[in-house]
Amino acid sequence: MFRILPRDQEFFLMFEKAAQNILDGAERLKDLLDNFDNLKERARAIEEIEHKGDTITHDIVRKLNTTFITPIEREDILALASAIDDVIDLIHAAATRITLYKLTESTPQAKELGFLILKSVRELDRGISHLSKKMDNVYDHCVEVNSLENEADRVCRDAIAFLFDNEKDPIMILKWKEIYETLETATDRCEDAANVLEGVALKNA
Amino acid sequence: MFRILPRDQEFFLMFEKAAQNILDGAERLKDLLDNFDNLKERARAIEEIEHKGDTITHDIVRKLNTTFITPIEREDILALASAIDDVIDLIHAAATRITLYKLTESTPQAKELGFLILKSVRELDRGISHLSKKMDNVYDHCVEVNSLENEADRVCRDAIAFLFDNEKDPIMILKWKEIYETLETATDRCEDAANVLEGVALKNA
Amino acid sequence: MFRILPRDQEFFLMFEKAAQNILDGAERLKDLLDNFDNLKERARAIEEIEHKGDTITHDIVRKLNTTFITPIEREDILALASAIDDVIDLIHAAATRITLYKLTESTPQAKELGFLILKSVRELDRGISHLSKKMDNVYDHCVEVNSLENEADRVCRDAIAFLFDNEKDPIMILKWKEIYETLETATDRCEDAANVLEGVALKNA
Repeated sequence: MFRILPRDQEFFLMFEKAAQNILDGAERLKDLLDNFDNLKERARAIEEIEHKGDTITHDIVRKLNTTFITPIEREDILALASAIDDVIDLIHAAATRITLYKLTESTPQAKELGFLILKSVRELDRGISHLSKKMDNVYDHCVEVNSLENEADRVCRDAIAFLFDNEKDPIMILKWKEIYETLETATDRCEDAANVLEGVALKNA
Repeated sequence: MFRILPRDQEFFLMFEKAAQNILDGAERLKDLLDNFDNLKERARAIEEIEHKGDTITHDIVRKLNTTFITPIEREDILALASAIDDVIDLIHAAATRITLYKLTESTPQAKELGFLILKSVRELDRGISHLSKKMDNVYDHCVEVNSLENEADRVCRDAIAFLFDNEKDPIMILKWKEIYETLETATDRCEDAANVLEGVALKNA
Repeated sequence: MFRILPRDQEFFLMFEKAAQNILDGAERLKDLLDNFDNLKERARAIEEIEHKGDTITHDIVRKLNTTFITPIEREDILALASAIDDVIDLIHAAATRITLYKLTESTPQAKELGFLILKSVRELDRGISHLSKKMDNVYDHCVEVNSLENEADRVCRDAIAFLFDNEKDPIMILKWKEIYETLETATDRCEDAANVLEGVALKNA
């Protein structure tokens, strides 16, 4: 009575592209935080990556709205696309704020957070690349993203406490506090993406 | 075996009412930011609009929970109602903070953000009014809301950078930074509403 | 043709456990805010409760992903678990910030917010305990949570206005403003949980 439609594998390719894109953004953000030079050019390059991300997200949502049978649940596709989009938005927001706020020196905590974001995004990228192949392999990467988020949370909290203890200029506190929180929120959104991935893997186990 | 139930058009009327309500709020917020006088009365009038919005949202949710067949998908109804409710909450929050923080003068950037909110809400209102008529016409208004959000984002970032460059009092920075961010977030929620609308239009294309 | 599967009541037990856990956290937060002594030990005890909450949430999500027929809708289970998890995260965040920011004295507004959180969580706990019994009784507790959130919102706004009027040190303003907002957000998440509960009750009326 019903014919089984071939499940549309193109979604997986689109997510791999989205993951590659945030990986590119996370690498550049880490470089920016480590080197803290040519800030405007570096921020502009990250802005381009963010625009590319917008296009990828838009393509996924459009495809979702015009596809009847999807290889994974519709709400998971939407939640995953939206979390990945948030990650690159936050990477971009951190880079932009650093240039706009005319900061001239990095901090050890900012570098650490940049590295944690890169590690989270790498795990996400690996998890996503297993979606279309071996769902079982997705799980370990998700656990790793969760533990990186916990670490980023701790680093961010300590960075803000350090700021309150050592920085006397309230305006500098305001600026760095916001940048630390923006960086930390990027790992929160990686965790959101990982939670969706984990759910998808479990449902298909 | 099944009888096709008449699709309940009342949801569209309720959304038009909700859109009219945030339009009323956005107009009053723009007036407040432009004139910056009688702040308490102006904020109180916006508070009443916010309460009216709560009632409309509550009616939509209640109707949703007791309706079996809906004209558009349940989660879209919920997401749209919730985004519209957030818009009026943020308009109200901005107005309240301005009075509570005892600010005495507006800024060009606040006026610009107020105007961008009004323009976004106007586009939303037009998009929503096409929901029950010609779905094709919804799309253009959604694109416009997206581009207004990008502009508000840029204005807000520049406003905060200007604040850091020109305002020496950290307490004034704190106050205005929060108000700019609250205004900008109102356009984010307009964009959320527009994204739901766009999805609805695509699914019914 | 189909056999009606027994609906899985275990979800209700898991939610009762989650509600008991945030009740424990809210009681300890109120004590911390009232007494403002032994801050580190008090914060550490709340951290343990937060970890326990993580485990409970994880168990609910895992059970959801491996259960075919659920006693209430899947998205309601997810939204409720997630809102409850946010409540304990925010209780924990408030406690941690108080210790990290080296605050030495409580404020009347912080105590009031702590009491409002406890009252909201108590209502949530009662509402949840009725889920598996008499759905009709759920409703009143949800209304109460909504009204407590409105009150917390007012207390928080006034607390920040008071801070701006009376505290001259911008760093103290920054610290307390964030703590007040964290406390207030805990009542927002209680309201989110109550809204899910109300929807569940209506759908099963």
